[in-house]
Amino acid sequence: MATITILLSCSMVLNLLLFVSIYSHGGWEQSWTETAAAEAEFVASISCSGHGRAFLDGSILDGKPVCECNACYAGPHCSVLLPGCIADADSGDPMFLEPFWLKHAASSTIVVPGWHRMSYEFNDGSLLSNQLESQIRTLHAVVGNAVTDGRYIVIGGGATQLLHAAVHSLSATNDRFSPARVVASTPYYPVYREQTEFFNSKDYKFEGDTSVYKNKSVSQGKFIELVTSPNNPDGKLKKAVLQGLSVKTIHDLAYYWPHYTPVPTPADEDLMIFTLSKLTGHGGSRFGWAIIKDEAVYQRMLTYMSLSTYGVPRETQLRVLKLLKVAIEEQGKEMFNFGYRIMRNRWIKLRKTMLTSKRFSIQELEPQNCSFARKVREPTPAFAWLKCEREEDKDCNAVLHSMNITGRHGSLFGAESRYVRLSLVKREDDFDWLLKRMKMLVSQENNDAGD
Amino acid sequence: MATITILLSCSMVLNLLLFVSIYSHGGWEQSWTETAAAEAEFVASISCSGHGRAFLDGSILDGKPVCECNACYAGPHCSVLLPGCIADADSGDPMFLEPFWLKHAASSTIVVPGWHRMSYEFNDGSLLSNQLESQIRTLHAVVGNAVTDGRYIVIGGGATQLLHAAVHSLSATNDRFSPARVVASTPYYPVYREQTEFFNSKDYKFEGDTSVYKNKSVSQGKFIELVTSPNNPDGKLKKAVLQGLSVKTIHDLAYYWPHYTPVPTPADEDLMIFTLSKLTGHGGSRFGWAIIKDEAVYQRMLTYMSLSTYGVPRETQLRVLKLLKVAIEEQGKEMFNFGYRIMRNRWIKLRKTMLTSKRFSIQELEPQNCSFARKVREPTPAFAWLKCEREEDKDCNAVLHSMNITGRHGSLFGAESRYVRLSLVKREDDFDWLLKRMKMLVSQENNDAGD
Repeated sequence: MATITILLSCSMVLNLLLFVSIYSHGGWEQSWTETAAAEAEFVASISCSGHGRAFLDGSILDGKPVCECNACYAGPHCSVLLPGCIADADSGDPMFLEPFWLKHAASSTIVVPGWHRMSYEFNDGSLLSNQLESQIRTLHAVVGNAVTDGRYIVIGGGATQLLHAAVHSLSATNDRFSPARVVASTPYYPVYREQTEFFNSKDYKFEGDTSVYKNKSVSQGKFIELVTSPNNPDGKLKKAVLQGLSVKTIHDLAYYWPHYTPVPTPADEDLMIFTLSKLTGHGGSRFGWAIIKDEAVYQRMLTYMSLSTYGVPRETQLRVLKLLKVAIEEQGKEMFNFGYRIMRNRWIKLRKTMLTSKRFSIQELEPQNCSFARKVREPTPAFAWLKCEREEDKDCNAVLHSMNITGRHGSLFGAESRYVRLSLVKREDDFDWLLKRMKMLVSQENNDAGD
Repeated sequence: MATITILLSCSMVLNLLLFVSIYSHGGWEQSWTETAAAEAEFVASISCSGHGRAFLDGSILDGKPVCECNACYAGPHCSVLLPGCIADADSGDPMFLEPFWLKHAASSTIVVPGWHRMSYEFNDGSLLSNQLESQIRTLHAVVGNAVTDGRYIVIGGGATQLLHAAVHSLSATNDRFSPARVVASTPYYPVYREQTEFFNSKDYKFEGDTSVYKNKSVSQGKFIELVTSPNNPDGKLKKAVLQGLSVKTIHDLAYYWPHYTPVPTPADEDLMIFTLSKLTGHGGSRFGWAIIKDEAVYQRMLTYMSLSTYGVPRETQLRVLKLLKVAIEEQGKEMFNFGYRIMRNRWIKLRKTMLTSKRFSIQELEPQNCSFARKVREPTPAFAWLKCEREEDKDCNAVLHSMNITGRHGSLFGAESRYVRLSLVKREDDFDWLLKRMKMLVSQENNDAGD
């Protein structure tokens, strides 16, 4: 009897505890975030065999978003490997960082209520969140790749929008030297030329390779030099070539992060452009920032943003704020080491493959001290800059294409056609295919040589 | 004894049920959306007295985001009314719709995982979500304000980006009629002039009021006419003025929604631009779309988007998809009726105030049949187009300013300085201040007249 009474008491206490637990955890309470959270969890739980992913805004079949498969995979769960698939190494889409964000889903997720920041402007009339601006400054302090103290910051729709805003702002002085001559050292990122030509402004004109104008700058009018460091496509750390009062310089530092290069010292240039795409892998978020010394240039770039798109979406700014917080957790060690490990591994595999080839070569880069890693490191750039060494292989991209490899044609970078840029930053699946095809190409060469 | 045993059994069954409940509701299970949801719920719960709001990316004090107060309010909970505050009716920021989204928080919230759509492109290589495109078409079908069947859709960073993309795309044919003459009927939206002049292209030039070129179009080269309907600032439904083979027309239909105007018939123009800002009130999301008949123009606008920003952020597209789903719930009745009720109420109050004034007048618009509301309705436009009627009140904005009212100067719209645009779409607090000040202005006039 006494035992049963004790058991009853215990059971009732347990009941009480369970009730309290349910209420304190909101298990029975319908909160306004619940539906959206349940939708997100449901979509995340859909299995796509590790070769694809379902998204909240994907196509729906039987009430369920369907898997979107990686290149070379198909089937409802992306489990079918397509034979003879082309290895696409064209785009510099840094999906190699996706696994990091899958692993950090809990800390990097945001909830955006329907009423979040509906207004055109923040309360101070600006188009940039104070918190985000300060987070960007903290990020550079942690990584040590750029000076931000006393500098202005403008955000934009990726480096894409900022590059044009910078060219526009540096050339927007209607004087006798107009139009400004926009130049870049060969091989250069193709968008510099495409964009400058496309907008067809009275104020600036793309004039190709910087080296043509070396030592001639003063006599030949106003120049805007685009400097990419590390360079896209070849990964070299670069310095400005032109000097003089009539020369303005834009430093595109998209790849100046420890995944891709040793970071010897914080960059401290007049106008530096960075992008989230290459930092965290979120190319789809269209977010970049410029760090600017001169206030007048800063003001002109703000006007550009205002008349071009009236700023960057507030939901994007909220998301970027969260992503940057995760990126600098543990002083950035987690994300940058994750990214560097993957890139290093890919470079080791690619170099091993290329070592036996005489027909193809890739760039060689010197190890340097990386202040972030506190040691000497070999560069692990985003792209292999492949050269076809045989006299007859004038169109190197065509040679690769015949072996089902798609790269980006050297001529687009203002270089010879015997160069091709191969992207090493895409998904694991993409890199695996590229490596497989490259191995076949090199082994075919060696077989031919053995005939 | 038997009673206690039964009680024990009941208690144990209850224990079991409570355990099951906890597990099935995930009360003890740490799901990856939990932290973000808890953060969002916490911020939403911060009280700002109905005159402000706390946001997830707001400044932090004592570990809590602080209230951001509406104009004319201050204090930690925005409960302090600032005396002598200026009634700011300058910006067309449609915050009058914020209460709708607060009411529909549960259905309009999104959860964005860190790994959501990181890639530069959707799986089909495009920069526009299929689901979103189809949602936009459904929206127009429900409202009946635009034909989308067989038309192309391009999205951009608000109408701002699309307007320039359209001008660029329609003028991008280097021929003997270059540069194209960009015109708009006075009074026109100031951004047309500002933007076209700012980009300083070789291909187009802003040439002011359309009426100057009426009946002269063929002989005077290539024209791009911007038609705003209902017009910003005066709310009139407008048609194109210029005709002819060398004339291209851009229809800015930002306000062609049932909140602001009777919608007599679905618009079916060559190039129509819409924006989320005026539809749902989300100006901060920088989202607009163009509906285009001609495939070549569509392709040129896609290229513009690609070289300008490389598309609209994926988190924005996800959010817009969700917002549009809510907007068309119950065939759009909830949101459009909510918006219309507020606007109608504001117009009734403003007209009543203006009725006794001889010094000031506002535009009068004819009632028309609205196919969405299925009845004849008076227009309820976003702006009052105020005129100072006295000879000596040449600078009407200065007159208003002396009474602590800020409007937008008529000269910016290419109109006389005796006109001022007053925004009626801002928050309830802003409208209340404007009305109060207008009442004072009119009552002062009547007192003066009675002297």
